[in-house]
Amino acid sequence: MKNTFGNNITITLFGESHGEAIGCVLDGIAPGIEVDEDFIASQMQKRKGMNSISTPRREDDKVRILSGVFEGKTTGTPIALMIENQTQHSKDYSDTKDLARPSHADYTAYCKYHGYQDYRGGGHFSGRITAPLVAAGAICLKALEKKGIAVGTHIASCAGISDRAFGNLAEDIALLKDMEMPVLCDKASAEMISAIESAKNEGDSLGGTLTTAVIGMPEGVGEPWFDTVEGMLSHALFSIPAIKGVEFGLGFGFADKKGSEANDEFHMCDGRVQTKTNNNGGINGGITNGMPIIFSCAVKPTPSIFKQQNTVDFMKKEDAVLNIKGRHDPAIIHRARVVVDSVTAITLCDLLATRFGTDWLGE
Amino acid sequence: MKNTFGNNITITLFGESHGEAIGCVLDGIAPGIEVDEDFIASQMQKRKGMNSISTPRREDDKVRILSGVFEGKTTGTPIALMIENQTQHSKDYSDTKDLARPSHADYTAYCKYHGYQDYRGGGHFSGRITAPLVAAGAICLKALEKKGIAVGTHIASCAGISDRAFGNLAEDIALLKDMEMPVLCDKASAEMISAIESAKNEGDSLGGTLTTAVIGMPEGVGEPWFDTVEGMLSHALFSIPAIKGVEFGLGFGFADKKGSEANDEFHMCDGRVQTKTNNNGGINGGITNGMPIIFSCAVKPTPSIFKQQNTVDFMKKEDAVLNIKGRHDPAIIHRARVVVDSVTAITLCDLLATRFGTDWLGE
Amino acid sequence: MKNTFGNNITITLFGESHGEAIGCVLDGIAPGIEVDEDFIASQMQKRKGMNSISTPRREDDKVRILSGVFEGKTTGTPIALMIENQTQHSKDYSDTKDLARPSHADYTAYCKYHGYQDYRGGGHFSGRITAPLVAAGAICLKALEKKGIAVGTHIASCAGISDRAFGNLAEDIALLKDMEMPVLCDKASAEMISAIESAKNEGDSLGGTLTTAVIGMPEGVGEPWFDTVEGMLSHALFSIPAIKGVEFGLGFGFADKKGSEANDEFHMCDGRVQTKTNNNGGINGGITNGMPIIFSCAVKPTPSIFKQQNTVDFMKKEDAVLNIKGRHDPAIIHRARVVVDSVTAITLCDLLATRFGTDWLGE
Amino acid sequence: MKNTFGNNITITLFGESHGEAIGCVLDGIAPGIEVDEDFIASQMQKRKGMNSISTPRREDDKVRILSGVFEGKTTGTPIALMIENQTQHSKDYSDTKDLARPSHADYTAYCKYHGYQDYRGGGHFSGRITAPLVAAGAICLKALEKKGIAVGTHIASCAGISDRAFGNLAEDIALLKDMEMPVLCDKASAEMISAIESAKNEGDSLGGTLTTAVIGMPEGVGEPWFDTVEGMLSHALFSIPAIKGVEFGLGFGFADKKGSEANDEFHMCDGRVQTKTNNNGGINGGITNGMPIIFSCAVKPTPSIFKQQNTVDFMKKEDAVLNIKGRHDPAIIHRARVVVDSVTAITLCDLLATRFGTDWLGE
Repeated sequence: MKNTFGNNITITLFGESHGEAIGCVLDGIAPGIEVDEDFIASQMQKRKGMNSISTPRREDDKVRILSGVFEGKTTGTPIALMIENQTQHSKDYSDTKDLARPSHADYTAYCKYHGYQDYRGGGHFSGRITAPLVAAGAICLKALEKKGIAVGTHIASCAGISDRAFGNLAEDIALLKDMEMPVLCDKASAEMISAIESAKNEGDSLGGTLTTAVIGMPEGVGEPWFDTVEGMLSHALFSIPAIKGVEFGLGFGFADKKGSEANDEFHMCDGRVQTKTNNNGGINGGITNGMPIIFSCAVKPTPSIFKQQNTVDFMKKEDAVLNIKGRHDPAIIHRARVVVDSVTAITLCDLLATRFGTDWLGE
Repeated sequence: MKNTFGNNITITLFGESHGEAIGCVLDGIAPGIEVDEDFIASQMQKRKGMNSISTPRREDDKVRILSGVFEGKTTGTPIALMIENQTQHSKDYSDTKDLARPSHADYTAYCKYHGYQDYRGGGHFSGRITAPLVAAGAICLKALEKKGIAVGTHIASCAGISDRAFGNLAEDIALLKDMEMPVLCDKASAEMISAIESAKNEGDSLGGTLTTAVIGMPEGVGEPWFDTVEGMLSHALFSIPAIKGVEFGLGFGFADKKGSEANDEFHMCDGRVQTKTNNNGGINGGITNGMPIIFSCAVKPTPSIFKQQNTVDFMKKEDAVLNIKGRHDPAIIHRARVVVDSVTAITLCDLLATRFGTDWLGE
Repeated sequence: MKNTFGNNITITLFGESHGEAIGCVLDGIAPGIEVDEDFIASQMQKRKGMNSISTPRREDDKVRILSGVFEGKTTGTPIALMIENQTQHSKDYSDTKDLARPSHADYTAYCKYHGYQDYRGGGHFSGRITAPLVAAGAICLKALEKKGIAVGTHIASCAGISDRAFGNLAEDIALLKDMEMPVLCDKASAEMISAIESAKNEGDSLGGTLTTAVIGMPEGVGEPWFDTVEGMLSHALFSIPAIKGVEFGLGFGFADKKGSEANDEFHMCDGRVQTKTNNNGGINGGITNGMPIIFSCAVKPTPSIFKQQNTVDFMKKEDAVLNIKGRHDPAIIHRARVVVDSVTAITLCDLLATRFGTDWLGE
Repeated sequence: MKNTFGNNITITLFGESHGEAIGCVLDGIAPGIEVDEDFIASQMQKRKGMNSISTPRREDDKVRILSGVFEGKTTGTPIALMIENQTQHSKDYSDTKDLARPSHADYTAYCKYHGYQDYRGGGHFSGRITAPLVAAGAICLKALEKKGIAVGTHIASCAGISDRAFGNLAEDIALLKDMEMPVLCDKASAEMISAIESAKNEGDSLGGTLTTAVIGMPEGVGEPWFDTVEGMLSHALFSIPAIKGVEFGLGFGFADKKGSEANDEFHMCDGRVQTKTNNNGGINGGITNGMPIIFSCAVKPTPSIFKQQNTVDFMKKEDAVLNIKGRHDPAIIHRARVVVDSVTAITLCDLLATRFGTDWLGE
């Protein structure tokens, strides 16, 4: 299904970094959901990241709603969102278009598209294509909010610096909402910013890990095989450029635990079935158990660095040396979190629509 | 799409642990591929695990090919595979059917299926349902082998004991093929077995990590968004019960690396574009770059332990105490590796069919 | 998606006419629906047709439910149905296996499967593969019945003989339920049987048209584009071998009508919005309007005739002469109607699950 | 899958008649195919129909290519096409927005979208939404042309007037290409135009039948069950508003034929396997046999007529009388043919990509 994802709610992405426009079609959203254009704009703003540690390419990224919204509410028909591209510095790329930037998709794009790909700024592979995901995600986040479901992501670690763990999830998620740098501990936040600035000054880049919490998900959502909550979320999350690992609950931390340490015992609490611990991250057998969904993503350091690198000219099939120009981020982890929230919201809306029917989200 | 996965090659799973039969339909496989029933049988055998550290439920698991194979070769039409269930000890389950086994799917199955689920032995959620995946995977593994593509998985760690890292991949994959305990280092293997036996004696269980290598994959396979190689593989892998984390290449190890350390520089080698390191696990921008695909899975400890656990009776909505009976594994990691190989093979066949057309695999 | 159809309820078909077994996997059916094995058996019986005008190949066609049903009710997990093949006269086919039977799929199967297809009895293209569709359809028909939705099909015309038009739909659908020859007018029924017998005696075959009515469908089901009710039903119906035309409501009869004659005026009736006429067959803009769904299918004459025919040997690439042996039907229209009912029921269940969620059908 | 269609090549439609813009995303098209913007414009022009017998709403319908095309060629990534809406007379609709126009989708849209639908001009149900289909189809038609595959549609009948049958298909398809009124016989053309003008003067409307021929399709394309050529084409064709019947080859004409009359005998001709007749319309067992694909569509008369009609106010649930205003077509059959060609081209491209792989179309 190439650039379309989802079963009952689908997202179809389009666009190239330096083409006319980028955008998406979000289909299957229930009718009657309020669309908050200010919230969309604020999410777009968050995706741009803090000035000091982000790319100087800073377009207006005005989201134009082409369809599917009427008198401020969703109609139930496809919602097409478009963002015009503005400040392309395409010239930055043409000189080096046949040099494969290490850990970028230039070479694989060439293999797949036989040289017809729009190479400028990474083309269809650019992180810029996450902008429409954020716009669509904003609609989904608001719809989930109405149903009492909230999503929040913080930088759990970056440059060897760890944030504090999630505590009261409702409070932490609220806290994260307006943070430019999504780190719960102020000291860790300052240290991470400083580390990213150092990397920037060195012409280098940093990665990290993001941890996401979702509260308010009803039980019984997801499928036992294939379309498990883990399977669907990871499928979507691995689309985000730079994400190279996804784990749920304890994740890789399970490896050294015994069953007696790792199992989440059930108990009755406030009249509801709950677990005492939540090592499984809210999912048993691929299906939500009513506890918070918790997962983490590994984010690799931005591959665009300003140090000289060895590479190849894939047209000439010979070794080459590359000095990257253009505008790039020393880290994208603080920008990626809003993409993670967005992709999570879209995927959860789809899982919920599959479970409860098309209209549920709008009821 | 519930119990069906894949775009051009699809697998549809069915069955309950203690029902009449379990099986699958594998569709989209090219015509003309030899089907080696002995290899299928040997893979089924591997899934059962070593005697000393596996469940005493040891059915014959004879795979019956109902369709799609004629005169020893695939016909191109759906391949239905069936395994009759034989030695069900269903009585082990009926007494405790309303008690949610911690970290199992009993409670979520109840939430989703409103009490109509076949609770016996985990029903449709049972690890037993991976048997048809292994049978289907055996057909795909052989088809890949013909195209020079090989898949191998070892236990990278278990109980705090680490195997040696992959070295010469072709040799290591060959080595793993006939191992009952898929550990490359003999000493680590003995220690892991001993640790699992100890856990068994304590009525406890262990998890670990599996690392998989795929060699021979052509460049240019996968999609830039959503149906990335990482997205498709993780989607499928998270179906395997107990897998709670998937990472590609360095995965979570990227978090503390700088771009200059993590980037995979390209060079010309033997006339081909290759990378000097393979931190990205053979995938750039969601698409294969011709290097080996490398990924790891976190496997949680088997949730069925013989220690007494607190839980709830989800019908009566009250706290309860559970003592699990039945036949269970103190670890499934050595058994899971053949499931990982199988799921990987099925998914790669699908990605290849999408890239090169239906017939390619049989050519 | 090859041999799988549907969005939220899917059917996956497998099997060859002379292979080990044929069957299907029906997935997405709500939990808690009673499965009536006697009704399944009676539908299978109807598919076999009247003795005097049907093929002498008359297998027992016992449907074995492998999964997804527990204590007489659906569990919500995939329902696998299997029918063993029994009385294969495979020898009838081997002599002529490279001769393309006119209007059969032998040549196209060869083109698609490069000679690896199971040629015996038409293999995967055989009308016999509709048997699992009927078994799955029986489960869906019963589920629809519980929701007040009934489906019935009669032979509208055959050999130039017309049945009377549908009158009181509820009564006519009830009438058709137990008819071996699904013709509402007795005189027309006798004439059609006689015409089919004549064709049989001449070694020839007949086709006809089937008209189907569905009552009780709720309003608002279907999608405006692509997954319209017409699109989904026709997609499924054209799978039935021999169906070469599908029309809704007036269908091709619209061609010579004016808008003022053809439009279905609305009025309030019994407190509900209804149309005065139903020329649109219950569907406006691809979506049900609450009126009965009415459609007709054109069924071509069985291509297996006993008259000598010119053809080619597609392996030798030379002209040839063919005399068909084996057991064949002089008409399949009276047998096809139960397949039409079944395919309709499966498709409507899918459309309803998409509209109202997975559980609706079982509530 | 709501507003997305196709397996390997997908089309996702969006837009409302009086919203900001309408458009589509065409995904899966091979890289390297020339995109001829003049041809797209000429197809858009054809969709508008002849002045004298078409709606006076005549927007510029300039197609803007937002992505997926670089330096005049497809890149292999999603092609987003957008058409801004311009001359909306939305006021024509607001007065009567709760009155269900007979045989239109107003009432079913209300049922499905609970009153949140954009009612203006039929919203997402408007025939205007076929404009992006025509734009996407133009790209596919040109791609097919490069592979020697041509598609042409004529009005076989309208108002009781029949066009001559297809003769030399290559010549007839070429002839149709530039016709404003796609009728092969000049006399029939004049009579049809005159009949449509009469209907217009009466405030009434006409339907008809369209017959389509496709030449040059390779053998072996399509699937035996569900994704048959007939199933896929009909699924797509029934999306076109006003199409209520689809038949292949003889279609409903098969009903009165005997097998001996209807079967298409094979013979060797010019070294190729061909059939002597083509009653099956180029498809056997759901798969192309190398003969021309022939099918016909029934087009109902435009439901917007200017005669007073009885209807209901679906909000007040009471009977009402409707006098339609606005700009409407007395017939859309001459405009629909380019939509049929487009939808056919998109669907065939998808079937070909499934059969021969993604790249085939661009090779």
